[in-house]
Amino acid sequence: MAQIQIKPERLLSFITEMANIGGTPNGGCNRQALTEEDRIGRTLFLNWCSEIGGVARLDSMGNIFVHFKGTDTTKLPVLMGSHLDTQPSGGKFDGVYGVLAALEVMSSLHDQNITLTHPVEIVVWSNEEGSRFSPAMSGSGVFAGKLSQSTLYQSVDDQGVSYQQALITTEQLGEFPCQSFPFAAALELHIEQGPILEAEQKSIGIVTGVQGMNWYQVTISGETTHAGPTPMSMRKDPVQGLHAMLPSLYAKVAEYGEQARITIGKITTIPSSPNTVPEQVIFTLDLRHPEQSILDKMSEELLSLCQQVPSILGSQVDVLWQSPAVVFDARCIDVVTQAAEQLSLTAMPIVSGAGHDSVYLSTVGPTGMIFVPCKDGISHNEKEHVEPEHLIAGGNVLLHSLMQLAQ
Amino acid sequence: MAQIQIKPERLLSFITEMANIGGTPNGGCNRQALTEEDRIGRTLFLNWCSEIGGVARLDSMGNIFVHFKGTDTTKLPVLMGSHLDTQPSGGKFDGVYGVLAALEVMSSLHDQNITLTHPVEIVVWSNEEGSRFSPAMSGSGVFAGKLSQSTLYQSVDDQGVSYQQALITTEQLGEFPCQSFPFAAALELHIEQGPILEAEQKSIGIVTGVQGMNWYQVTISGETTHAGPTPMSMRKDPVQGLHAMLPSLYAKVAEYGEQARITIGKITTIPSSPNTVPEQVIFTLDLRHPEQSILDKMSEELLSLCQQVPSILGSQVDVLWQSPAVVFDARCIDVVTQAAEQLSLTAMPIVSGAGHDSVYLSTVGPTGMIFVPCKDGISHNEKEHVEPEHLIAGGNVLLHSLMQLAQ
Repeated sequence: MAQIQIKPERLLSFITEMANIGGTPNGGCNRQALTEEDRIGRTLFLNWCSEIGGVARLDSMGNIFVHFKGTDTTKLPVLMGSHLDTQPSGGKFDGVYGVLAALEVMSSLHDQNITLTHPVEIVVWSNEEGSRFSPAMSGSGVFAGKLSQSTLYQSVDDQGVSYQQALITTEQLGEFPCQSFPFAAALELHIEQGPILEAEQKSIGIVTGVQGMNWYQVTISGETTHAGPTPMSMRKDPVQGLHAMLPSLYAKVAEYGEQARITIGKITTIPSSPNTVPEQVIFTLDLRHPEQSILDKMSEELLSLCQQVPSILGSQVDVLWQSPAVVFDARCIDVVTQAAEQLSLTAMPIVSGAGHDSVYLSTVGPTGMIFVPCKDGISHNEKEHVEPEHLIAGGNVLLHSLMQLAQ
Repeated sequence: MAQIQIKPERLLSFITEMANIGGTPNGGCNRQALTEEDRIGRTLFLNWCSEIGGVARLDSMGNIFVHFKGTDTTKLPVLMGSHLDTQPSGGKFDGVYGVLAALEVMSSLHDQNITLTHPVEIVVWSNEEGSRFSPAMSGSGVFAGKLSQSTLYQSVDDQGVSYQQALITTEQLGEFPCQSFPFAAALELHIEQGPILEAEQKSIGIVTGVQGMNWYQVTISGETTHAGPTPMSMRKDPVQGLHAMLPSLYAKVAEYGEQARITIGKITTIPSSPNTVPEQVIFTLDLRHPEQSILDKMSEELLSLCQQVPSILGSQVDVLWQSPAVVFDARCIDVVTQAAEQLSLTAMPIVSGAGHDSVYLSTVGPTGMIFVPCKDGISHNEKEHVEPEHLIAGGNVLLHSLMQLAQ
């Protein structure tokens, strides 16, 4: 049974057809959550599912669960899925690939008349991207009890349309309450959205977890003064605090090895005038590490460095956001590792740097992820591209992982 | 004759009365160029002048020249003046003090029935601040042939009112064409707008010149990428270019001694998102030095440092603005120095870090400036404050300098 494979042409054709709905001139996709395009895409997906015997149900957040019976009705379902919504100028693969590969896996099993022991459910999580309604990963977040449905219902898009109205308009408001239920395992196949697999020339990333993330805002305060009259020695210039601080931050993170990340995405000065020494320099600090205890220690050391400014300056650090590190289920990791080996695919363990529905899902049941490389690590962009060989490899790993977990 | 002095109470009363026109609740002044408040202020000033025999004329930029006869009609006039317009939330002294001290000087000479050899003209330059119409120092700039009157005429304020319309509305459009004429010397008394005199405990700044200023915009380019997935070693992070560059810029300017200035007033990242490595970091560079040849050399060295980024990054420097260094007239400097000595006032040579009407004036005739200290170096602010003793000292130095130049 190890030689069963998905049908490459059918998977690629699922992806191409879905990409036409909301397709953009530059080869990307604009199919944002709970829009008319999303409704059309979901309907197409449900038609494909029903052709192979899937029975769909919608929950109160618009999450879709397509049920395929197992041979043993006492067994818990195995979930496979991701999301169908895209960024406003997103790509064809982010999320969508995970859903359509799951469909292809069930289609291939259907071709061979194979029914697994466990029931299987393909899941489409609502509003993963968060570009229309905030926060992101709404469907999985409410499912896992980490986000509030009533708060989400009131979240509005740029046109003032609420999540709840959008659910009704697009006929995606289901009768089933959105809440977690026991499952045997959950698998999400996704593009990496980073450059590591491509650089390492691997087809498969065995995702061991998701980086913990801490966001801070650092404010260095000095005193505003005219650029001309005041001698350098009499200035309280926060930019001089910045240039003394930045190198130490990067150097400290480097001490924590290649799993550690520091990103200073935003730097501003107040007031922002060429001939005025700023009163304040403000910058954001995004720190990440896959191990929570290390992230905590690193963050603590960095925050202490952020306090070290010359005595004429002041410094303040505010916490913007924190997301703890996730370690995926050991059995899921094993099963994916074995599937890649069985199929003689190049693979490596990898930690996700981006958030996914699986982060929420992992808090309520055994969860794992599979990554495939994407060109130049580019995602959330019309240029997002994945080579067909990697799409097919990922589909086959999903198929064989499922067969292990649901047998 | 060395013992003749201005009348302190009258000078302070001129300043107080003028400050009531456009006075702000916090003790500052909002009397922007060619507004109704400016018209009222100018009319008040002209009334005071006519009481002591001054004869006013307006030019086509709204500059006011108040003529006082000398004993020798073949001599060129000596000019004294500054500006009456203020910033929207400006102070009572910036510019205004120079005009009203000149008025007090002429009033004191009038009290004593003294007529100097040279004629004297008190000048009120239009729109020095530039807060309503751009560029600043319009009146003196057109006078010196450095700015175009027709361009200025079309300059509009935030309400769409043009400079020309404002001249007409406020009845400040004169019949005389705005153009330079020969003068024996020009003196401008002004508050320092910086902290040096206060720190050095001096009453009088003998202004030797104005700093040359070069403004640049530096762009460091990298590659935008997600804060999570991309390892530090695979990033092209322009912030790392910034932190390597900044210290070298400050260190290089320090090599040029205490007259050199570097101000990085504006830093931004593009895109400006906490979880995205920026594609670009852009900052402004304001470089100043009183000696043009040194400013040129320093700027050249700094621009070369701005090119030195790691090979994975790019760097570009654009010139935003340049204003050459000004060295004031040697005789004017001498005369001010002697006047301060005669009056036993504490004084020191100083270089202006801010632009003034005298910068333009110095290009068409012998020009000098006198500074007095202002509290904490604060200006362009309702909190602007000058101690009466310094206001009086400055007025007396102006009086005795004028007497030397116009004798």
